[in-house]
Amino acid sequence: MDRDTLPDVPSTPQPAIVDLLGALAYGELSAFDRLADDARMAPTLVGRAQMSAMAAAEFRDYARLAERLQSLDVEPAAAMEPFVAALETYHSLTSPSTWLESVVKAYVGDGMAADFYREVAEFVDPDTRSLIHSVLSDGGRAEFALREVHSALTTEPSVRGRLALWARRLVGEAISQTQHVLADRDSLMQLLFGGSGELASVAGLIARITVRHDERMTKLGLSG
Amino acid sequence: MDRDTLPDVPSTPQPAIVDLLGALAYGELSAFDRLADDARMAPTLVGRAQMSAMAAAEFRDYARLAERLQSLDVEPAAAMEPFVAALETYHSLTSPSTWLESVVKAYVGDGMAADFYREVAEFVDPDTRSLIHSVLSDGGRAEFALREVHSALTTEPSVRGRLALWARRLVGEAISQTQHVLADRDSLMQLLFGGSGELASVAGLIARITVRHDERMTKLGLSG
Repeated sequence: MDRDTLPDVPSTPQPAIVDLLGALAYGELSAFDRLADDARMAPTLVGRAQMSAMAAAEFRDYARLAERLQSLDVEPAAAMEPFVAALETYHSLTSPSTWLESVVKAYVGDGMAADFYREVAEFVDPDTRSLIHSVLSDGGRAEFALREVHSALTTEPSVRGRLALWARRLVGEAISQTQHVLADRDSLMQLLFGGSGELASVAGLIARITVRHDERMTKLGLSG
Repeated sequence: MDRDTLPDVPSTPQPAIVDLLGALAYGELSAFDRLADDARMAPTLVGRAQMSAMAAAEFRDYARLAERLQSLDVEPAAAMEPFVAALETYHSLTSPSTWLESVVKAYVGDGMAADFYREVAEFVDPDTRSLIHSVLSDGGRAEFALREVHSALTTEPSVRGRLALWARRLVGEAISQTQHVLADRDSLMQLLFGGSGELASVAGLIARITVRHDERMTKLGLSG
Protein backbone atom coordinates (compact mmCIF):
# COMPACT_ATOMS: atom_id res chain seq x y z
CA MET A 1 0.00 0.00 0.00
CA ASP A 2 1.69 3.19 -1.17
CA ARG A 3 -1.19 5.60 -0.81
CA ASP A 4 0.62 7.57 1.90
CA THR A 5 3.56 8.37 -0.31
CA LEU A 6 1.53 9.61 -3.24
CA PRO A 7 -0.35 12.84 -3.73
CA ASP A 8 -4.09 12.29 -3.44
CA VAL A 9 -6.13 13.39 -6.41
CA PRO A 10 -9.62 13.55 -4.92
CA SER A 11 -10.82 15.72 -7.78
CA THR A 12 -10.55 12.99 -10.43
CA PRO A 13 -13.72 13.42 -12.48
CA GLN A 14 -16.27 10.61 -12.13
CA PRO A 15 -16.36 9.72 -15.88
CA ALA A 16 -12.65 8.90 -15.81
CA ILE A 17 -13.10 6.66 -12.75
CA VAL A 18 -16.06 4.90 -14.36
CA ASP A 19 -14.08 4.40 -17.58
CA LEU A 20 -11.09 3.08 -15.69
CA LEU A 21 -13.17 0.65 -13.61
CA GLY A 22 -15.16 -0.37 -16.70
CA ALA A 23 -12.04 -1.09 -18.76
CA LEU A 24 -10.52 -3.03 -15.90
CA ALA A 25 -13.76 -4.97 -15.23
CA TYR A 26 -14.05 -6.05 -18.84
CA GLY A 27 -10.35 -6.88 -18.80
CA GLU A 28 -10.96 -9.25 -15.89
CA LEU A 29 -14.12 -10.76 -17.40
CA SER A 30 -12.40 -11.40 -20.73
CA ALA A 31 -9.28 -12.72 -18.98
CA PHE A 32 -11.53 -15.15 -17.09
CA ASP A 33 -13.02 -16.24 -20.39
CA ARG A 34 -9.70 -16.66 -22.16
CA LEU A 35 -7.89 -18.42 -19.32
CA ALA A 36 -10.81 -20.85 -18.95
CA ASP A 37 -10.58 -21.49 -22.68
CA ASP A 38 -6.79 -21.88 -22.66
CA ALA A 39 -6.97 -24.29 -19.68
CA ARG A 40 -8.32 -26.87 -22.13
CA MET A 41 -4.94 -26.96 -23.85
CA ALA A 42 -3.17 -28.06 -20.67
CA PRO A 43 -1.16 -31.26 -21.15
CA THR A 44 -2.14 -32.51 -17.66
CA LEU A 45 -5.11 -32.26 -15.30
CA VAL A 46 -2.80 -30.51 -12.83
CA GLY A 47 -1.95 -27.76 -15.32
CA ARG A 48 -5.58 -27.47 -16.33
CA ALA A 49 -6.67 -27.02 -12.71
CA GLN A 50 -3.96 -24.39 -12.15
CA MET A 51 -4.97 -22.31 -15.15
CA SER A 52 -8.65 -22.74 -14.25
CA ALA A 53 -7.80 -21.41 -10.77
CA MET A 54 -6.31 -18.29 -12.37
CA ALA A 55 -9.49 -17.87 -14.41
CA ALA A 56 -11.67 -18.18 -11.29
CA ALA A 57 -9.47 -15.58 -9.55
CA GLU A 58 -10.02 -13.18 -12.47
CA PHE A 59 -13.74 -13.63 -12.06
CA ARG A 60 -13.57 -12.79 -8.35
CA ASP A 61 -11.71 -9.60 -9.27
CA TYR A 62 -14.31 -8.80 -11.91
CA ALA A 63 -17.06 -9.21 -9.30
CA ARG A 64 -15.34 -6.75 -6.94
CA LEU A 65 -15.02 -4.14 -9.71
CA ALA A 66 -18.64 -4.66 -10.75
CA GLU A 67 -19.69 -4.16 -7.14
CA ARG A 68 -17.75 -0.89 -6.95
CA LEU A 69 -19.39 0.34 -10.17
CA GLN A 70 -22.80 -0.51 -8.74
CA SER A 71 -21.97 1.42 -5.58
CA LEU A 72 -21.34 4.42 -7.89
CA ASP A 73 -24.82 3.83 -9.40
CA VAL A 74 -23.33 2.64 -12.69
CA GLU A 75 -24.42 -0.56 -14.41
CA PRO A 76 -21.26 -2.67 -14.88
CA ALA A 77 -22.37 -3.73 -18.37
CA ALA A 78 -22.74 -0.09 -19.44
CA ALA A 79 -19.33 0.84 -18.05
CA MET A 80 -17.67 -2.14 -19.78
CA GLU A 81 -19.32 -1.74 -23.17
CA PRO A 82 -16.93 0.91 -24.62
CA PHE A 83 -13.96 -1.42 -24.04
CA VAL A 84 -15.37 -4.70 -25.36
CA ALA A 85 -14.22 -4.19 -28.97
CA ALA A 86 -10.60 -3.29 -28.15
CA LEU A 87 -10.15 -6.16 -25.70
CA GLU A 88 -11.83 -8.71 -27.96
CA THR A 89 -9.61 -7.54 -30.83
CA TYR A 90 -6.54 -7.96 -28.64
CA HIS A 91 -7.59 -11.47 -27.64
CA SER A 92 -8.55 -12.55 -31.14
CA LEU A 93 -5.19 -11.31 -32.51
CA THR A 94 -3.30 -13.10 -29.73
CA SER A 95 -5.18 -16.37 -29.51
CA PRO A 96 -2.62 -18.93 -28.29
CA SER A 97 -2.16 -22.02 -30.45
CA THR A 98 -0.19 -23.99 -27.86
CA TRP A 99 -0.23 -24.46 -24.10
CA LEU A 100 3.10 -22.64 -23.73
CA GLU A 101 1.81 -19.66 -25.71
CA SER A 102 -1.17 -19.45 -23.37
CA VAL A 103 1.12 -19.62 -20.32
CA VAL A 104 3.34 -16.83 -21.69
CA LYS A 105 0.29 -14.74 -22.52
CA ALA A 106 -1.09 -15.15 -18.99
CA TYR A 107 2.21 -13.93 -17.53
CA VAL A 108 3.63 -11.46 -20.08
CA GLY A 109 0.44 -10.03 -21.61
CA ASP A 110 -1.56 -9.79 -18.41
CA GLY A 111 1.54 -8.61 -16.53
CA MET A 112 2.02 -5.71 -18.90
CA ALA A 113 -1.66 -4.75 -18.69
CA ALA A 114 -1.44 -4.86 -14.90
CA ASP A 115 1.60 -2.56 -14.93
CA PHE A 116 -0.28 -0.09 -17.10
CA TYR A 117 -3.32 -0.05 -14.81
CA ARG A 118 -1.09 0.34 -11.76
CA GLU A 119 0.50 3.41 -13.33
CA VAL A 120 -2.88 4.93 -14.16
CA ALA A 121 -4.07 4.15 -10.63
CA GLU A 122 -1.52 6.64 -9.30
CA PHE A 123 -3.71 9.44 -10.64
CA VAL A 124 -6.99 8.49 -8.94
CA ASP A 125 -8.43 8.72 -5.44
CA PRO A 126 -6.93 6.45 -2.76
CA ASP A 127 -9.99 4.16 -2.47
CA THR A 128 -10.10 3.45 -6.18
CA ARG A 129 -6.32 3.06 -6.26
CA SER A 130 -6.41 0.58 -3.43
CA LEU A 131 -9.13 -1.48 -5.15
CA ILE A 132 -7.18 -1.48 -8.43
CA HIS A 133 -3.97 -2.56 -6.74
CA SER A 134 -5.74 -5.43 -4.98
CA VAL A 135 -7.42 -6.81 -8.12
CA LEU A 136 -4.10 -6.68 -9.99
CA SER A 137 -2.27 -9.06 -7.66
CA ASP A 138 -0.39 -11.70 -9.56
CA GLY A 139 -2.04 -14.66 -7.82
CA GLY A 140 0.93 -16.99 -8.22
CA ARG A 141 0.90 -16.92 -11.99
CA ALA A 142 4.54 -15.78 -12.26
CA GLU A 143 5.72 -18.86 -10.40
CA PHE A 144 3.45 -21.05 -12.52
CA ALA A 145 4.58 -19.54 -15.84
CA LEU A 146 8.27 -19.72 -14.91
CA ARG A 147 7.98 -23.40 -13.97
CA GLU A 148 6.12 -24.35 -17.16
CA VAL A 149 8.38 -22.36 -19.51
CA HIS A 150 11.67 -23.37 -17.85
CA SER A 151 10.64 -27.00 -17.97
CA ALA A 152 9.78 -26.68 -21.68
CA LEU A 153 13.04 -24.87 -22.50
CA THR A 154 14.99 -27.67 -20.81
CA THR A 155 13.35 -30.50 -22.71
CA GLU A 156 12.90 -28.65 -25.99
CA PRO A 157 15.25 -25.64 -26.34
CA SER A 158 14.02 -24.96 -29.86
CA VAL A 159 10.74 -23.44 -28.57
CA ARG A 160 12.68 -20.44 -27.23
CA GLY A 161 12.77 -18.43 -30.46
CA ARG A 162 9.09 -18.97 -31.17
CA LEU A 163 8.04 -17.99 -27.63
CA ALA A 164 10.21 -14.86 -27.71
CA LEU A 165 8.54 -13.86 -30.97
CA TRP A 166 5.14 -14.60 -29.44
CA ALA A 167 5.90 -12.33 -26.47
CA ARG A 168 6.84 -9.50 -28.85
CA ARG A 169 3.58 -9.95 -30.68
CA LEU A 170 1.64 -9.76 -27.40
CA VAL A 171 3.33 -6.46 -26.57
CA GLY A 172 2.72 -5.03 -30.03
CA GLU A 173 -0.98 -5.86 -30.00
CA ALA A 174 -1.42 -4.63 -26.41
CA ILE A 175 0.15 -1.26 -27.28
CA SER A 176 -1.91 -0.99 -30.43
CA GLN A 177 -5.22 -1.62 -28.64
CA THR A 178 -4.29 0.70 -25.77
CA GLN A 179 -3.70 3.47 -28.29
CA HIS A 180 -7.11 2.83 -29.86
CA VAL A 181 -8.81 3.01 -26.45
CA LEU A 182 -7.02 6.21 -25.45
CA ALA A 183 -7.79 7.86 -28.80
CA ASP A 184 -11.44 6.97 -28.26
CA ARG A 185 -11.87 7.88 -24.57
CA ASP A 186 -11.03 11.48 -23.76
CA SER A 187 -11.61 10.84 -20.07
CA LEU A 188 -8.79 8.28 -19.88
CA MET A 189 -6.48 10.36 -22.04
CA GLN A 190 -7.03 13.34 -19.72
CA LEU A 191 -6.55 11.15 -16.67
CA LEU A 192 -3.24 9.93 -18.00
CA PHE A 193 -1.91 13.25 -19.29
CA GLY A 194 -3.63 15.44 -16.73
CA GLY A 195 -2.45 13.16 -13.92
CA SER A 196 1.14 13.02 -14.98
CA GLY A 197 1.12 16.69 -15.83
CA GLU A 198 3.51 16.58 -18.71
CA LEU A 199 4.74 14.47 -21.57
CA ALA A 200 8.02 13.69 -19.79
CA SER A 201 6.06 11.88 -17.08
CA VAL A 202 4.23 9.77 -19.64
CA ALA A 203 7.61 8.90 -21.14
CA GLY A 204 8.69 7.82 -17.65
CA LEU A 205 5.54 5.71 -17.30
CA ILE A 206 6.28 3.92 -20.58
CA ALA A 207 9.89 3.42 -19.57
CA ARG A 208 8.88 1.81 -16.26
CA ILE A 209 6.41 -0.53 -17.97
CA THR A 210 9.12 -1.49 -20.48
CA VAL A 211 11.63 -2.22 -17.71
CA ARG A 212 9.17 -4.51 -15.92
CA HIS A 213 8.35 -6.29 -19.17
CA ASP A 214 12.07 -6.89 -19.80
CA GLU A 215 12.38 -8.29 -16.27
CA ARG A 216 9.64 -10.82 -16.97
CA MET A 217 11.25 -11.84 -20.26
CA THR A 218 14.59 -12.31 -18.54
CA LYS A 219 13.03 -14.43 -15.79
CA LEU A 220 11.36 -16.59 -18.43
CA GLY A 221 14.70 -17.06 -20.20
CA LEU A 222 13.30 -15.48 -23.35
CA SER A 223 15.24 -12.19 -23.52
CA GLY A 224 18.25 -11.13 -25.56
CA MET B 1 -28.06 -30.57 7.32
CA ASP B 2 -29.72 -33.93 7.79
CA ARG B 3 -26.82 -35.84 9.22
CA ASP B 4 -28.63 -36.33 12.53
CA THR B 5 -31.56 -38.08 10.96
CA LEU B 6 -29.51 -40.54 8.95
CA PRO B 7 -27.58 -43.61 10.03
CA ASP B 8 -23.85 -42.95 10.03
CA VAL B 9 -21.84 -45.31 7.90
CA PRO B 10 -18.34 -44.75 9.29
CA SER B 11 -17.14 -47.97 7.72
CA THR B 12 -17.43 -46.74 4.13
CA PRO B 13 -14.28 -48.08 2.49
CA GLN B 14 -11.73 -45.43 1.52
CA PRO B 15 -11.65 -46.36 -2.22
CA ALA B 16 -15.36 -45.59 -2.53
CA ILE B 17 -14.91 -42.20 -0.85
CA VAL B 18 -11.96 -41.38 -3.09
CA ASP B 19 -13.94 -42.42 -6.18
CA LEU B 20 -16.94 -40.38 -5.09
CA LEU B 21 -14.86 -37.28 -4.38
CA GLY B 22 -12.86 -37.79 -7.59
CA ALA B 23 -15.99 -38.10 -9.74
CA LEU B 24 -17.51 -35.06 -8.10
CA ALA B 25 -14.28 -33.04 -8.38
CA TYR B 26 -14.00 -33.75 -12.10
CA GLY B 27 -17.70 -32.98 -12.44
CA GLU B 28 -17.08 -29.53 -10.94
CA LEU B 29 -13.94 -28.89 -12.99
CA SER B 30 -15.65 -29.85 -16.24
CA ALA B 31 -18.77 -27.87 -15.28
CA PHE B 32 -16.52 -24.85 -14.72
CA ASP B 33 -15.03 -25.40 -18.17
CA ARG B 34 -18.38 -25.84 -19.92
CA LEU B 35 -20.16 -22.96 -18.20
CA ALA B 36 -17.23 -20.65 -19.00
CA ASP B 37 -17.47 -21.80 -22.60
CA ASP B 38 -21.26 -21.43 -22.75
CA ALA B 39 -21.09 -17.94 -21.21
CA ARG B 40 -19.75 -16.75 -24.58
CA MET B 41 -23.15 -17.48 -26.12
CA ALA B 42 -24.89 -15.02 -23.80
CA PRO B 43 -26.91 -12.41 -25.70
CA THR B 44 -25.92 -9.70 -23.19
CA LEU B 45 -22.95 -8.83 -21.00
CA VAL B 46 -25.24 -9.25 -17.98
CA GLY B 47 -26.10 -12.83 -18.92
CA ARG B 48 -22.48 -13.56 -19.70
CA ALA B 49 -21.38 -12.28 -16.29
CA GLN B 50 -24.08 -14.37 -14.57
CA MET B 51 -23.07 -17.60 -16.28
CA SER B 52 -19.40 -16.79 -15.69
CA ALA B 53 -20.24 -16.38 -12.00
CA MET B 54 -21.72 -19.90 -11.95
CA ALA B 55 -18.55 -21.20 -13.59
CA ALA B 56 -16.38 -19.50 -10.98
CA ALA B 57 -18.55 -21.01 -8.23
CA GLU B 58 -18.02 -24.47 -9.71
CA PHE B 59 -14.29 -23.89 -9.57
CA ARG B 60 -14.47 -22.91 -5.89
CA ASP B 61 -16.31 -26.17 -5.23
CA TYR B 62 -13.71 -28.10 -7.21
CA ALA B 63 -10.96 -26.53 -5.09
CA ARG B 64 -12.67 -27.65 -1.86
CA LEU B 65 -13.01 -31.24 -3.11
CA ALA B 66 -9.38 -31.25 -4.30
CA GLU B 67 -8.33 -30.02 -0.87
CA ARG B 68 -10.26 -32.85 0.81
CA LEU B 69 -8.64 -35.41 -1.48
CA GLN B 70 -5.21 -34.01 -0.61
CA SER B 71 -6.03 -34.28 3.09
CA LEU B 72 -6.67 -38.00 2.41
CA ASP B 73 -3.19 -38.17 0.79
CA VAL B 74 -4.69 -38.62 -2.66
CA GLU B 75 -3.59 -36.57 -5.68
CA PRO B 76 -6.75 -34.90 -7.06
CA ALA B 77 -5.65 -35.57 -10.65
CA ALA B 78 -5.29 -39.30 -9.91
CA ALA B 79 -8.71 -39.48 -8.25
CA MET B 80 -10.37 -37.64 -11.14
CA GLU B 81 -8.71 -39.56 -13.98
CA PRO B 82 -11.12 -42.56 -14.04
CA PHE B 83 -14.08 -40.23 -14.59
CA VAL B 84 -12.68 -37.94 -17.27
CA ALA B 85 -13.83 -40.04 -20.23
CA ALA B 86 -17.46 -40.46 -19.09
CA LEU B 87 -17.90 -36.79 -18.24
CA GLU B 88 -16.24 -35.56 -21.41
CA THR B 89 -18.45 -37.92 -23.41
CA TYR B 90 -21.54 -36.56 -21.66
CA HIS B 91 -20.48 -32.97 -22.39
CA SER B 92 -19.53 -33.63 -26.00
CA LEU B 93 -22.89 -35.34 -26.64
CA THR B 94 -24.77 -32.48 -24.98
CA SER B 95 -22.89 -29.48 -26.30
CA PRO B 96 -25.47 -26.65 -26.38
CA SER B 97 -25.94 -24.91 -29.71
CA THR B 98 -27.91 -21.96 -28.32
CA TRP B 99 -27.84 -19.80 -25.22
CA LEU B 100 -31.18 -21.26 -24.03
CA GLU B 101 -29.90 -24.81 -24.41
CA SER B 102 -26.91 -23.92 -22.25
CA VAL B 103 -29.19 -22.36 -19.63
CA VAL B 104 -31.41 -25.46 -19.55
CA LYS B 105 -28.36 -27.71 -19.32
CA ALA B 106 -26.97 -25.71 -16.39
CA TYR B 107 -30.27 -26.13 -14.52
CA VAL B 108 -31.69 -29.49 -15.64
CA GLY B 109 -28.51 -31.47 -16.35
CA ASP B 110 -26.49 -30.20 -13.40
CA GLY B 111 -29.57 -30.40 -11.17
CA MET B 112 -30.06 -34.06 -11.94
CA ALA B 113 -26.39 -34.81 -11.33
CA ALA B 114 -26.59 -32.97 -8.02
CA ASP B 115 -29.64 -35.04 -6.98
CA PHE B 116 -27.75 -38.23 -7.79
CA TYR B 117 -24.70 -37.21 -5.73
CA ARG B 118 -26.92 -36.13 -2.83
CA GLU B 119 -28.52 -39.60 -2.81
CA VAL B 120 -25.14 -41.33 -2.87
CA ALA B 121 -23.93 -39.02 -0.10
CA GLU B 122 -26.49 -40.62 2.23
CA PHE B 123 -24.29 -43.71 2.32
CA VAL B 124 -21.02 -42.08 3.40
CA ASP B 125 -19.57 -40.69 6.61
CA PRO B 126 -21.07 -37.42 7.93
CA ASP B 127 -18.01 -35.26 7.14
CA THR B 128 -17.90 -36.33 3.51
CA ARG B 129 -21.68 -36.03 3.29
CA SER B 130 -21.58 -32.52 4.64
CA LEU B 131 -18.88 -31.49 2.16
CA ILE B 132 -20.83 -33.00 -0.73
CA HIS B 133 -24.05 -31.26 0.28
CA SER B 134 -22.27 -27.91 0.52
CA VAL B 135 -20.61 -28.13 -2.91
CA LEU B 136 -23.94 -29.10 -4.50
CA SER B 137 -25.74 -25.91 -3.53
CA ASP B 138 -27.64 -24.44 -6.42
CA GLY B 139 -25.98 -21.02 -6.25
CA GLY B 140 -28.95 -19.12 -7.65
CA ARG B 141 -28.96 -20.92 -10.98
CA ALA B 142 -32.58 -22.06 -10.67
CA GLU B 143 -33.77 -18.47 -10.45
CA PHE B 144 -31.50 -17.50 -13.34
CA ALA B 145 -32.65 -20.37 -15.59
CA LEU B 146 -36.33 -19.78 -14.84
CA ARG B 147 -36.03 -16.09 -15.69
CA GLU B 148 -34.18 -16.71 -18.98
CA VAL B 149 -36.45 -19.56 -20.13
CA HIS B 150 -39.75 -17.90 -19.12
CA SER B 151 -38.72 -14.72 -20.91
CA ALA B 152 -37.88 -16.72 -24.04
CA LEU B 153 -41.13 -18.70 -23.91
CA THR B 154 -43.07 -15.45 -23.71
CA THR B 155 -41.44 -13.81 -26.71
CA GLU B 156 -41.00 -16.98 -28.78
CA PRO B 157 -43.35 -19.79 -27.68
CA SER B 158 -42.13 -22.02 -30.52
CA VAL B 159 -38.85 -22.77 -28.68
CA ARG B 160 -40.77 -24.81 -26.10
CA GLY B 161 -40.85 -28.09 -28.01
CA ARG B 162 -37.18 -27.93 -28.91
CA LEU B 163 -36.13 -27.17 -25.33
CA ALA B 164 -38.29 -29.99 -23.94
CA LEU B 165 -36.63 -32.39 -26.39
CA TRP B 166 -33.23 -31.02 -25.39
CA ALA B 167 -33.96 -31.66 -21.70
CA ARG B 168 -34.91 -35.27 -22.50
CA ARG B 169 -31.65 -35.72 -24.35
CA LEU B 170 -29.71 -34.37 -21.36
CA VAL B 171 -31.40 -36.92 -19.10
CA GLY B 172 -30.78 -39.78 -21.50
CA GLU B 173 -27.09 -39.03 -21.87
CA ALA B 174 -26.65 -38.47 -18.13
CA ILE B 175 -28.21 -41.87 -17.35
CA SER B 176 -26.15 -43.55 -20.02
CA GLN B 177 -22.83 -42.17 -18.73
CA THR B 178 -23.75 -42.90 -15.11
CA GLN B 179 -24.33 -46.53 -16.07
CA HIS B 180 -20.93 -46.66 -17.77
CA VAL B 181 -19.23 -45.27 -14.67
CA LEU B 182 -21.01 -47.65 -12.29
CA ALA B 183 -20.24 -50.65 -14.52
CA ASP B 184 -16.60 -49.61 -14.47
CA ARG B 185 -16.15 -48.72 -10.79
CA ASP B 186 -16.97 -51.55 -8.40
CA SER B 187 -16.40 -49.29 -5.42
CA LEU B 188 -19.22 -46.94 -6.42
CA MET B 189 -21.53 -49.77 -7.38
CA GLN B 190 -21.00 -51.34 -3.95
CA LEU B 191 -21.45 -48.00 -2.25
CA LEU B 192 -24.77 -47.52 -3.98
CA PHE B 193 -26.11 -51.06 -3.60
CA GLY B 194 -24.38 -51.85 -0.31
CA GLY B 195 -25.55 -48.53 1.15
CA SER B 196 -29.15 -48.87 0.14
CA GLY B 197 -29.14 -52.55 1.07
CA GLU B 198 -31.52 -53.77 -1.56
CA LEU B 199 -32.73 -53.23 -5.08
CA ALA B 200 -36.00 -51.74 -3.87
CA SER B 201 -34.07 -48.88 -2.28
CA VAL B 202 -32.24 -48.16 -5.51
CA ALA B 203 -35.62 -48.07 -7.25
CA GLY B 204 -36.69 -45.52 -4.62
CA LEU B 205 -33.57 -43.48 -5.29
CA ILE B 206 -34.29 -43.40 -9.02
CA ALA B 207 -37.92 -42.49 -8.35
CA ARG B 208 -36.91 -39.56 -6.14
CA ILE B 209 -34.45 -38.24 -8.74
CA THR B 210 -37.16 -38.54 -11.41
CA VAL B 211 -39.67 -36.63 -9.29
CA ARG B 212 -37.21 -33.77 -8.74
CA HIS B 213 -36.41 -33.67 -12.44
CA ASP B 214 -40.11 -33.43 -13.26
CA GLU B 215 -40.43 -30.56 -10.79
CA ARG B 216 -37.69 -28.63 -12.56
CA MET B 217 -39.31 -29.25 -15.96
CA THR B 218 -42.66 -28.03 -14.63
CA LYS B 219 -41.09 -24.89 -13.17
CA LEU B 220 -39.43 -24.18 -16.52
CA GLY B 221 -42.77 -24.58 -18.28
CA LEU B 222 -41.37 -27.44 -20.37
CA SER B 223 -43.32 -30.42 -19.00
CA GLY B 224 -46.33 -32.26 -20.27
